[in-house]
Amino acid sequence: MARTQGSHADITGPRIRDAALRLFAKHGYAAVSMRQIAAEVGVQAGALYNYTPDKQALLVSLLQGHMEELLAARPDPSGDPMQRLRAFTDFHIAFHLDRPEAMFISYMELRNLEKPHFDAVERLRRAYEDGLEQILRAGREAGVFALPDTRIAAFALIAMLNGVNTWYRAGGRLSLPQVQDLYWDMVRKAVAA
Amino acid sequence: MARTQGSHADITGPRIRDAALRLFAKHGYAAVSMRQIAAEVGVQAGALYNYTPDKQALLVSLLQGHMEELLAARPDPSGDPMQRLRAFTDFHIAFHLDRPEAMFISYMELRNLEKPHFDAVERLRRAYEDGLEQILRAGREAGVFALPDTRIAAFALIAMLNGVNTWYRAGGRLSLPQVQDLYWDMVRKAVAA
Repeated sequence: MARTQGSHADITGPRIRDAALRLFAKHGYAAVSMRQIAAEVGVQAGALYNYTPDKQALLVSLLQGHMEELLAARPDPSGDPMQRLRAFTDFHIAFHLDRPEAMFISYMELRNLEKPHFDAVERLRRAYEDGLEQILRAGREAGVFALPDTRIAAFALIAMLNGVNTWYRAGGRLSLPQVQDLYWDMVRKAVAA
Repeated sequence: MARTQGSHADITGPRIRDAALRLFAKHGYAAVSMRQIAAEVGVQAGALYNYTPDKQALLVSLLQGHMEELLAARPDPSGDPMQRLRAFTDFHIAFHLDRPEAMFISYMELRNLEKPHFDAVERLRRAYEDGLEQILRAGREAGVFALPDTRIAAFALIAMLNGVNTWYRAGGRLSLPQVQDLYWDMVRKAVAA
């Protein structure tokens, strides 16, 4: 079957993004050239420009795509605040353990986004933090959480959960559900009334 | 007063490290050249080699120096486990807020350390984590902390506290003591029996 222009783009686009992700995570955005990305994909450098205007556009696509995927994958806001916080905790750990490179560059390469793109990514990150803060506020109103500052608490919990990526190794002494249980124990207590 | 060779080295060495720190934090290690570092200091590129054998040695000096300083500055292990954990919390936040660039590259540029240097820095980080874990174990033995896994709890608390650097701005709505109080409230509860 002949490949159409469309299906070719559908395949090559993701391969370019994957290659850029791997190379940015390994060497840092500033140290990677479009030529290196093309070599990693196995195409000529010129061919890359059929899919992306420049390296900055690739970085934007990766960082913005990561945040959009994160927001879209969040668990439904059902149940009481304690159940919602548990679902958030389990989801956040699993989502990020599944995407260590995207998470790494999402923090590290923010400095390399041009201002309007930086602002766009920060708006998405803010929306994610807001989602957690809504759960914390609901729990405080229901009297099950005691938190003097739900904004700071949201930052603190997200940072704690992000930390899993710095030490977790698949096949190590702890399974994902065990990690989720250990962190839930601390999250639950940290916010408890 | 004539400057001796020694005093000259004493001044220029730290200036080179400061310049390297700034540039690595801004552009990433891989994207920065010795020539750029020399220009930032205001010396010829060749002069740099009187102070450091190469760029890797500068990165090692920065990352290892940061960890050694952190270990040396830790509060005395006096008081009961709760008091020691409070002192650790206050210290960790203040130390890292004071050194945002060193902290940033300590995480981001680990990947660029050659293996023996990476291992050396990891040993120092492990010693710091061990110090916190000792406090947590002492508290668990005293019955004031309830933690199923003190190792993971140490990772979780350090990650939570590290997160302050991602949002705190001096002169913002919260003072350092207020931040320390808010985080202590969560740390204390997270480990509580």
